[in-house]
Amino acid sequence: MASKIRLGILGGGGDSLIGVLHRVAAAMYDQYEIVGGVFNPNWEENIGFAEKIGLPTNRIYKDFDTLIVEETKLPVSERMQVVSVLTPNFLHFPMAKKLLENGFNVICEKPMTITYEEAIILQETLKLANTVFAVTYTYTGYPMVRQMREMIANGEIGEVQKIDAQYYQGWINPIIHDKEKRSTTWRLNPEKSGISCCIGDIGTHAFDMIEYVTGLKVNAILADLNYVYDDNKMDVDGTVLIRCSDTTKGVIRTSQIATGEENNFTVQVYGKKAGLKWAQENPNYLYLLEDGKPLRVLKPGHSYNSEISLDGTKLPPGHPEGIFDSMGNIYKGVASAIRKEQYDHMEFPTIIDGVRGMNFIEKAVESHQKGNIWVTLDD
Amino acid sequence: MASKIRLGILGGGGDSLIGVLHRVAAAMYDQYEIVGGVFNPNWEENIGFAEKIGLPTNRIYKDFDTLIVEETKLPVSERMQVVSVLTPNFLHFPMAKKLLENGFNVICEKPMTITYEEAIILQETLKLANTVFAVTYTYTGYPMVRQMREMIANGEIGEVQKIDAQYYQGWINPIIHDKEKRSTTWRLNPEKSGISCCIGDIGTHAFDMIEYVTGLKVNAILADLNYVYDDNKMDVDGTVLIRCSDTTKGVIRTSQIATGEENNFTVQVYGKKAGLKWAQENPNYLYLLEDGKPLRVLKPGHSYNSEISLDGTKLPPGHPEGIFDSMGNIYKGVASAIRKEQYDHMEFPTIIDGVRGMNFIEKAVESHQKGNIWVTLDD
Amino acid sequence: MASKIRLGILGGGGDSLIGVLHRVAAAMYDQYEIVGGVFNPNWEENIGFAEKIGLPTNRIYKDFDTLIVEETKLPVSERMQVVSVLTPNFLHFPMAKKLLENGFNVICEKPMTITYEEAIILQETLKLANTVFAVTYTYTGYPMVRQMREMIANGEIGEVQKIDAQYYQGWINPIIHDKEKRSTTWRLNPEKSGISCCIGDIGTHAFDMIEYVTGLKVNAILADLNYVYDDNKMDVDGTVLIRCSDTTKGVIRTSQIATGEENNFTVQVYGKKAGLKWAQENPNYLYLLEDGKPLRVLKPGHSYNSEISLDGTKLPPGHPEGIFDSMGNIYKGVASAIRKEQYDHMEFPTIIDGVRGMNFIEKAVESHQKGNIWVTLDD
Amino acid sequence: MASKIRLGILGGGGDSLIGVLHRVAAAMYDQYEIVGGVFNPNWEENIGFAEKIGLPTNRIYKDFDTLIVEETKLPVSERMQVVSVLTPNFLHFPMAKKLLENGFNVICEKPMTITYEEAIILQETLKLANTVFAVTYTYTGYPMVRQMREMIANGEIGEVQKIDAQYYQGWINPIIHDKEKRSTTWRLNPEKSGISCCIGDIGTHAFDMIEYVTGLKVNAILADLNYVYDDNKMDVDGTVLIRCSDTTKGVIRTSQIATGEENNFTVQVYGKKAGLKWAQENPNYLYLLEDGKPLRVLKPGHSYNSEISLDGTKLPPGHPEGIFDSMGNIYKGVASAIRKEQYDHMEFPTIIDGVRGMNFIEKAVESHQKGNIWVTLDD
Repeated sequence: MASKIRLGILGGGGDSLIGVLHRVAAAMYDQYEIVGGVFNPNWEENIGFAEKIGLPTNRIYKDFDTLIVEETKLPVSERMQVVSVLTPNFLHFPMAKKLLENGFNVICEKPMTITYEEAIILQETLKLANTVFAVTYTYTGYPMVRQMREMIANGEIGEVQKIDAQYYQGWINPIIHDKEKRSTTWRLNPEKSGISCCIGDIGTHAFDMIEYVTGLKVNAILADLNYVYDDNKMDVDGTVLIRCSDTTKGVIRTSQIATGEENNFTVQVYGKKAGLKWAQENPNYLYLLEDGKPLRVLKPGHSYNSEISLDGTKLPPGHPEGIFDSMGNIYKGVASAIRKEQYDHMEFPTIIDGVRGMNFIEKAVESHQKGNIWVTLDD
Repeated sequence: MASKIRLGILGGGGDSLIGVLHRVAAAMYDQYEIVGGVFNPNWEENIGFAEKIGLPTNRIYKDFDTLIVEETKLPVSERMQVVSVLTPNFLHFPMAKKLLENGFNVICEKPMTITYEEAIILQETLKLANTVFAVTYTYTGYPMVRQMREMIANGEIGEVQKIDAQYYQGWINPIIHDKEKRSTTWRLNPEKSGISCCIGDIGTHAFDMIEYVTGLKVNAILADLNYVYDDNKMDVDGTVLIRCSDTTKGVIRTSQIATGEENNFTVQVYGKKAGLKWAQENPNYLYLLEDGKPLRVLKPGHSYNSEISLDGTKLPPGHPEGIFDSMGNIYKGVASAIRKEQYDHMEFPTIIDGVRGMNFIEKAVESHQKGNIWVTLDD
Repeated sequence: MASKIRLGILGGGGDSLIGVLHRVAAAMYDQYEIVGGVFNPNWEENIGFAEKIGLPTNRIYKDFDTLIVEETKLPVSERMQVVSVLTPNFLHFPMAKKLLENGFNVICEKPMTITYEEAIILQETLKLANTVFAVTYTYTGYPMVRQMREMIANGEIGEVQKIDAQYYQGWINPIIHDKEKRSTTWRLNPEKSGISCCIGDIGTHAFDMIEYVTGLKVNAILADLNYVYDDNKMDVDGTVLIRCSDTTKGVIRTSQIATGEENNFTVQVYGKKAGLKWAQENPNYLYLLEDGKPLRVLKPGHSYNSEISLDGTKLPPGHPEGIFDSMGNIYKGVASAIRKEQYDHMEFPTIIDGVRGMNFIEKAVESHQKGNIWVTLDD
Repeated sequence: MASKIRLGILGGGGDSLIGVLHRVAAAMYDQYEIVGGVFNPNWEENIGFAEKIGLPTNRIYKDFDTLIVEETKLPVSERMQVVSVLTPNFLHFPMAKKLLENGFNVICEKPMTITYEEAIILQETLKLANTVFAVTYTYTGYPMVRQMREMIANGEIGEVQKIDAQYYQGWINPIIHDKEKRSTTWRLNPEKSGISCCIGDIGTHAFDMIEYVTGLKVNAILADLNYVYDDNKMDVDGTVLIRCSDTTKGVIRTSQIATGEENNFTVQVYGKKAGLKWAQENPNYLYLLEDGKPLRVLKPGHSYNSEISLDGTKLPPGHPEGIFDSMGNIYKGVASAIRKEQYDHMEFPTIIDGVRGMNFIEKAVESHQKGNIWVTLDD
C-alpha cells in the first residue's frame, strides 16, 4: 500500500456518537487518513473539534460548498478520495448528490435520503459518477452476519421458507407519552424526519439485514403501524408481514416503545434443512439449528468460518468483537473498492441497499394508511 | 383432606406422552387417585395398560359409553369425581359434553373442540351442569408465568402497549415436504383435525397465554398463513397481527416449519413503565426490563414472588421446575375447585379459555382466506 | 407388571420438601405405591399427615421400631418392599442398618451416615442383606448428566485430563454472620451434623458427580476450608484440589457463603479430544466443546442421546425437565433393581457412592486441619 | 488539545495480532499519532510493514538502539512521548528499562518481565525516571470490570469473603500431546519463556483482575500445577488457592488444556451483602447477586454506572463493546497521565501490577515445587 486513503468527514463533531464510530472504523485497518471536512456549521466549534481530535486544520472548511470548491482545486493525488456524510438526515441527499457529481466516493449514513424519490435520483447520479458509494447499515459488517449470509448462499440451510427479524427499542417512551415532547421533537416531525420514525430508523436495518443474509428480495409487504396518540404524526412501532414469494413468508417487527429494550435486533432464517439465528446484542454467536441434531454455536475467527467472515475478524477466537469492528469491516470493504482491489460485493451496503430501504419505508406507511393491505415493492 | 379425588382417564394409554404428563401431574400434590377409565379402544391394550401402570382393573371399561353407564350407577361417594379427556381431538367434544350432562367434572386437553360452534355448545352444557371444567393450556401453570400475570395485574409495568408472542417448532418439515406424507397424515386432514394445523395446535397456546398474562382481550386479528404447497390443505405457519385496542397492538408468530426449533414458545409484554419476557424452554426465568435500570431476572420460590406463583413452587430457589410442575399446578387448581375450596380463578384455564381459543382459530383462518383482512373476535 | 412396588416412608412429613420430592419421584413412572410409614415422631402429626396426602392409615406406625415389628409380621407379598429414609441425618445410619438386617430394600437420603465408620458398617450389613440400596444423590438422575457419563465412557472426549466442579450457595450468610445464630443452629453443631457442614452437605454431591460422570476415582485431595469465625466449628466454604492420577487433576469448589447463589452446581470435564460442561440450574443443556469446531449443545429427548439418557426423558424435545424428573429417574432405577429386571448400574447411586462420600468428607477435613496437605482416599 | 501524543511502537509488525490491538486502541479516542518505531528486526519487513499501514517511514529505525539514539536527538516537542513495547517477552525488560532511562513513557505488554528480579529492577528504574508506565493487562479496561471495581470499593457487596477467578483455554492441546512439538516450542522452553507457561501467561491476568476488582492484596498462595508429561518443563494447567486474609479465601483456576475453551476468563467475588460476576467472552454483562432479590444484570453506558465505567463507553446502551474498546480505554488513561491531566489510578495497570504479577508467577511455581505448600507474596 503506497499510502492511506484520504478521507473527509461531514458532520460528526461535538458529542456525536456516530462521529466516534466512523473515526474508529476508519482507523481500524490502517487504511484511511482523515484529512479534513466540516464537523459543524458553527466555525468555532468546527475548528475546535478538529483540534480536539488532533487534526491539522488547513482542510477544515467553513461549509460544505466551500469544501467542494476547495477540494476540487487540489490535484487528484491530494484531493479527498472519499467523504463520509454524517449530517442530519435531510442533508444526506443534497450532500451525497453533489459529492457524486464532483467525482467523490461517498460513505453515507442511513437513512440514505428522506424520500424514495430522492433515493432514485441519487442512484441515477451514481450511475453517471461511477464512483464507490456505501450506505452504513452497520450491522452487516459483523463477522457472524457475513457467515450467516455465506452459509445460506451455500445452501447449508436449504431453500429459505421462513424469515423473522426483530428490532426492539424502548427509548421513545419518555417522549411519546409526554404531549409537549412528542409535539416538539424533530424525530416525530415529518418535515424533518420523513414519513416514518420507527420503520425509517430501524425497520430499514431489519429489511436490509433480511435481504443481505437471505440473498432474497422482499416483494410484497403488509404493515400495521402504531402512532399511539391521535396527535402524533409518526409511527413508533410497526409490524410488517413480508413475502419473498407466495410460500416464502416472514415478518419484520420493530418498536421504539418496547420498554426497557436497548438495541435488541435479531434475525432468524429457517430453510428446509436448517435454521440460523443471530442477535446484535451478542454479535459473536451464530446459532445453527438442525432437526434432530445438537444446536451448534459458531463464533468468529475459527477456520470453519467463510473467507469473508474471517476477513472481518482481527483477533483469535475468544476475544469479543463489538460494534466498532462491524463498522470497521464496512470501511475496509469501501477501501478495497476505492483502491479497485478485488472485493466481495457483500463487504459493504451499496446504493441499491439504500434505494430499497427507502422504498420499504414508503411502502410500509402506504400499506398501513390504506388499511393494512398488501403492497408490492419495486424491483 | 378426607380422601383423594377420584379421577378417571379417557385415552392416554400405550406410548402416549400426554398420558404420562397427566398422570404425573395428578400425583404431584397428593390430591388425586386414579380409579379407572378407558385407556384404549382395544380391550387387550386397555386392560394391559392399566395393569402396566399398576391400577386395579375393576373400573377399566370397554368404552366411554360403558364408563358413563357404570359410573353413574355407583354411589356419589365412590363415583369418579373428575374425568380427564386425553383422546384424539375430534372426540373431545362428544365426550366432554356427555360427561358434563352426567354431572362429572372435566379436565379436557386442548384444542377443546374441533369447531367454535362445538365450543359454544359445550359452554352452554357447562352452564347447566355447573361442574368444574378445565382446559389444559399447560404453560399457564408455570410459576413464572403466574408471576408475570400478577405483576401486570398489579400495574408493575404500567398500561400494556405492545405484545409479542412466538411459538416456533420445526417438526412438520419432514412431513410437509414429502408429497405422500403431507397428503396422508391426519394432522393435515381437515376432517380429522379441524380447519387449522399450526394456528389450531400452537397458535391457541400463544393466544391463551397473551390473554392470560395481560388480562386483556384480543378483539381483532389479521392473519397471514402459509400452506407451503398448493395441494396442502392446512396451515403449517402463520403470523397474526393482533389488537387489544386501537393503540395496544401486537403479533402472534407461529410456525411448524421453523426448522430445528423444538418448542420455542416465548411471550414479551411491554407496558408504559416496563417490559416482561418469558420463554418456555427456560421457564424458570422472568425478565423485567425497566428503562435505565439493570435488567432484573426473577426466579421461582423467592419471597418476592406473588402468592399464586409461590403456591406452584414446591422446592427452594435453585431447583429447576419443568413441564410436569406446570401441569401439576393446573391439576392442583382443579382439585381446589372440585373441593369447593377457595382458589384464584387464574389457577387453571376454564371453558372460557377453550371457547376463545376456538374462536381465534376460526377467525385467523377467515382473515387469511379473505385476503389478510382484519376480523373481529367475539366477546 | 403385576402390581406396584410397596413403598414405606420414614420422615418427610409436615412441610418437608424432601418428602414432596420423594413422593412425586415415586409416582413418576407408575411403579410405586406408598403403603405406609412413619412421617413424624408425633402421633397426631404423623396420622394427620398421612390423611392429608390421602393415604390409608392402617400401616402408619407410631415409630420406626413398630414399623419393623409389624411389617415383618406381614406375608412377603404384602410387606413393604422398599423403605425411603428421609429422617434427620443422624438417624440414617441406625434406621438403614436395621432395615437391611430385616431384609428390606432401602432408599436413603444423603449424607448416608454421619461418619465414614458408620458407612463402612452399613456396607458390611448390606453384603449380608443382599438387598437393593440407593443413596439419593439426586443430580445424577438428570438425562443430560447420564448422557455426559455415557459420552465420556465411550471415549468421545478422549482421556480425561482436567476436572472442575463447583457447588456454590449463599444461604448460610444470615446465619454465619450472626454470633447468636451460628452458635445455636444444628447445622453448625458437629454433634448433630458430623464433622463438616459445607463439604458434607454439598461437597459430597460434587465429589459423587465427578466420579459418576468421569468413571474415575479421586485418589488424593488437598483441602482448604473456611470457618470464617474462630468461634464457628464447621466449614461453610471449601476448595479441594483433587487428583485422579499424577496428571489428571482438578478442583472441587464449594461454598455456602457465595452470596446470592442459589444452587449453582456445575461440572466441567476436559479430555484430550473435547470438553463437556453441565449446570444444574439449567439441567437440560449439555455443552460439547471441541477444538476448532462450533460449540454443540445437546438437549434431552433427541435420538442422538444414549439409551440411558433417553430412558430418563418422558417427553419430546423442548419440554424442560426439572428436579422431579431427576429424582424420578433414580426411583425408576431402584424399581428395576427391586424387580430384578436388567438395569444399568449407573441408574442410581449405590452404597459405594455413599461410602466414598463419607470418606471424602473426613479426608477433606483432615487435609485442612493438618495444614492443607495431600491425603489419600481409601479405594 | 493542542496535538496528538507522539507514539512509537516496538514489535507488532507482520501478522502480529497484538500489533493490531494496540494500533486500534491508540486510534480509538483520537489521542495518539504513531510517528515511528521498529516493527521487525528484518529491515525489509520493517519498512514494508510501515508502508503497508500507511506510516511515513522517516522515523522507522533499523533497531531499538538506533531508535533511542535518534529520538533523543530530536527536540522534546518532536520526540516520541511514549513507546509501546510489543516484542517477544524476554525483550520487554531490557527495552523498557532503557526507554525509562532515556525519559520515555512506556506502554509494556505483559508479562512485564521474565523474572521477578527484573520486575523489581524495572520498578527502581521507573522511580528515577518518573515517567508514565503501563502494563497492558487488557481486560481491566472493560467498562463493566471498572464498574465491578467501583461497586466493591463503594461497599455495595459488603466485605469480600470469597473470590473465584477462572482462565481456561484449550489451545496447547495439540502441542502438549505431541512429544516433538512440546520439546521444541518456545512457549514450553524456560529459557525463552521464563519459569511458567500457564500461570505466567494467563494466571497473571486472573491474579491482576482479582486485585483490581477487589482492591485487596493476595498475601499467600498454594499452587498445584500440571505439566502432564515428565519430559515437559513448564506448567500448562494450574489451580492456585489464595488468601487475602485468614478468612478471605479464594481460588485462581487456569488451564491451557481445557479442551475447546477459547478465552474463558471469569471472575466472581462474593461479599457479605452481595456477589458480582463477570465473564470476558460476554464482557458487556455484570451480574449482581443479592440474597432473596432478583438477579440484576448491569450493562455499559447506563447512567447507573460509575463515572469511570461510563468514561470508557463510547456508544449508547445496546451497542456491544469488544476487546478493542477495552484496550482503547487503557490507552486513553495513559494519555491522560502523559498529559498530566487528572485521572483515576485505576484507569490503567501500572508497574506495581507488573511487579506483583511476576511475584505471583514465581511464588506459584515455588509452592508447587515444594509439594503444594503455602507461600507468602511480597507486599
